[in-house]
Amino acid sequence: MKPYSKLSKEELEKLKQELQGRFDKIKAQGLKFDMSRGKPSKAQLDLSKGLMDVLPGDADMTSSDGADCRNYGVLDGIAEARKLLADMSEVPERNILIYGNSSLNVMFDTVSRAMTHGIMGNTPWCRLKKVKFLCPVPGYDRHFAITESFGIEMINIPLLETGPDMDMVEKLVHEDEAVKGIWCVPKYANPTGISYSDDTVRRFARLKPAAKDFRIFWDNAYSIHHLYDDKRDVILELLNECIKEGNPDMVFKFISTSKVSFPGSGIAALAASRANLEDAKHYMQFQTIGHDKLNQLRHVRYFKDMQGMYNQMRRHADIIRPKFEKVEEVLEREIGGLGIGTWTKPLGGYFISFDSMEGCAKAIVAKAKEAGLVMTSAGATYPYGKDPRDTNIRIAPTFPTIEELSQATEIFVLSVKLVSIEKLLSK
Amino acid sequence: MKPYSKLSKEELEKLKQELQGRFDKIKAQGLKFDMSRGKPSKAQLDLSKGLMDVLPGDADMTSSDGADCRNYGVLDGIAEARKLLADMSEVPERNILIYGNSSLNVMFDTVSRAMTHGIMGNTPWCRLKKVKFLCPVPGYDRHFAITESFGIEMINIPLLETGPDMDMVEKLVHEDEAVKGIWCVPKYANPTGISYSDDTVRRFARLKPAAKDFRIFWDNAYSIHHLYDDKRDVILELLNECIKEGNPDMVFKFISTSKVSFPGSGIAALAASRANLEDAKHYMQFQTIGHDKLNQLRHVRYFKDMQGMYNQMRRHADIIRPKFEKVEEVLEREIGGLGIGTWTKPLGGYFISFDSMEGCAKAIVAKAKEAGLVMTSAGATYPYGKDPRDTNIRIAPTFPTIEELSQATEIFVLSVKLVSIEKLLSK
Repeated sequence: MKPYSKLSKEELEKLKQELQGRFDKIKAQGLKFDMSRGKPSKAQLDLSKGLMDVLPGDADMTSSDGADCRNYGVLDGIAEARKLLADMSEVPERNILIYGNSSLNVMFDTVSRAMTHGIMGNTPWCRLKKVKFLCPVPGYDRHFAITESFGIEMINIPLLETGPDMDMVEKLVHEDEAVKGIWCVPKYANPTGISYSDDTVRRFARLKPAAKDFRIFWDNAYSIHHLYDDKRDVILELLNECIKEGNPDMVFKFISTSKVSFPGSGIAALAASRANLEDAKHYMQFQTIGHDKLNQLRHVRYFKDMQGMYNQMRRHADIIRPKFEKVEEVLEREIGGLGIGTWTKPLGGYFISFDSMEGCAKAIVAKAKEAGLVMTSAGATYPYGKDPRDTNIRIAPTFPTIEELSQATEIFVLSVKLVSIEKLLSK
Repeated sequence: MKPYSKLSKEELEKLKQELQGRFDKIKAQGLKFDMSRGKPSKAQLDLSKGLMDVLPGDADMTSSDGADCRNYGVLDGIAEARKLLADMSEVPERNILIYGNSSLNVMFDTVSRAMTHGIMGNTPWCRLKKVKFLCPVPGYDRHFAITESFGIEMINIPLLETGPDMDMVEKLVHEDEAVKGIWCVPKYANPTGISYSDDTVRRFARLKPAAKDFRIFWDNAYSIHHLYDDKRDVILELLNECIKEGNPDMVFKFISTSKVSFPGSGIAALAASRANLEDAKHYMQFQTIGHDKLNQLRHVRYFKDMQGMYNQMRRHADIIRPKFEKVEEVLEREIGGLGIGTWTKPLGGYFISFDSMEGCAKAIVAKAKEAGLVMTSAGATYPYGKDPRDTNIRIAPTFPTIEELSQATEIFVLSVKLVSIEKLLSK
């Protein structure tokens, strides 16, 4: 099929009429689909059923380091949970601190702590005139929401195929003492699905920040979340690279089992240098007597080790791979070659990132909503919700069933086509 | 027996020698006891075994409001958990917000939020020159640790038999805009075990604070933690009293199931006016996608309702009542009438509060430690760890077995006697 830009005004008008007819018919069916968030489906949740059965009331609830997991204490997490999440984070046990049920909460707390107490003896950020964060874009809306809520100024950094534009990162981090952090999803990035190249990771590790309390906020949310058995991205482990470069304290790594076991009922951790962890623990001791150790024990009894996690992730992949492929198939079939959109084909993670013609994303999301399809708000993948070119749309294919997904993607492509034609006609 | 103050120097010296001999014999046994923290014993933890069995993998994990508790979402907590903890807090469901595994964490977050974001549109405390909290003393060390860690100035308020000295509270709250909060444990107070009188609660509700964002931090940690069936303290419900007085926004109530089910693996809540809860939720939405709903569901399935909780608390009481009575019996037998200490006989809660002769508490705790008994640090019940008269010692009788407790209390009374004699001899 010809690219839309090669069609005459008349051809576009005719096509528009036909597509609008199809759109109205679907709309009349009153359907409801949700592709807005990276949520596991029911079938994925069922995979972890067994988690609920490994810790019956008469089980031994003693951790390997001798704690009764039903009682107060053990601020850093029980030994076997530290080991499991250290393995998952690819760091030694001494570099891990277990938190509660969500890595987002760990990130929030880490920023909050920097605001009120400062990092490793540095001035609390709330006492500084200006604090800035670098935000590779498109990126994760909840990261940006945290920094925005604390009044931290966010600077867009283009996310390339290899990771953030490191020339820009280096310049800003080296020259501006107000730059205190950068949000990174280094593997199967939310939403583009790209993974950082070795060169990018090494350049991160070699940063010489103007601010002593600059930290890389490394949210490795999709570290083992591959879609395929024999195709996968591999990234360099950043903490070790930082140690090699004499920058052991420059990184906070965040990880959780949210999309391995149950979102909201998993366990999360912070991986960092001992100096950073001691600093975090000093603060945490005022915050809590300890996180939920029974849930830590439950996870270890269920998964046992990384092999247990890998097996679980293969079962997840078997469920979600066909969904990604279905969306990609419909996109390719319906708008391939039309010149009205491009999209990513990630090897893992939870999202497909779609780029429309300039100035069309908001209208496409609104159009899809008319026919009952909820997408992530256009702009959400940028700080302050402002996509400067209004092109990026995040597609989350995991929650709907394949059948729903097929219909939902039809609504989506119809919306893309209609909005693109409007755009071309208005030129 | 004669009060020590009536003994001659010679009698004291002789007594000292005899007591020191007994002390040395016990010390030589190399015993280890811990009466430092309000921790449930193993027998108490066993009471909640069944909690681990009510939510097997094949159970229906859908909340009454239709959420799959295994997935993301439901920021305020599932409906049935809101209902249960609203009942426990004696407020309507609309006034409850469920949090994670610990009410201490809710309190910390509440102070942290006030620091960085401000309360209901007021200036964030971190931008103010001075923030002060009133601290009824003796009180809970972890409360004081939170405010100290945020650099908040703490002012001691004497805790009377009826609650905090309300004349002093009123004066400070009415006159000083820097006074932003007061820490309260209104029922079976930590450590004295007293409960606030109706008049005290009403005077709290009628406060007219100079600061618009003054809040009463009402930690109702022992709301249903009675020791006896037919003797119990009852306190007025503060949120309703505040509403009656036109001060609906003045109170944050904190509650948890930590000492009902499992400490560290329970559920916690904030009870407050809708305006306060909306303010808290606005912040919480950046912090987390939701707390552990499976644990919320587990608690509701297990306890069902308040009657279920009451029954559980009676079983707790059956275990800990004899421990309180054992400590009280040894104290009475060994130092009753000696004029070297007084202690409380609470009807609930987790502590017995002991007051030594002036200037003896630190020495008594140190002495007990020599013989293997760990007590809460003397001074811990005061802000900054400074007990101005050095008299208060918190006794936590729940964790040891009755046999251990008997020996531990013997060590304690020997320590009290020896230190008191030293004190009298040095005069």
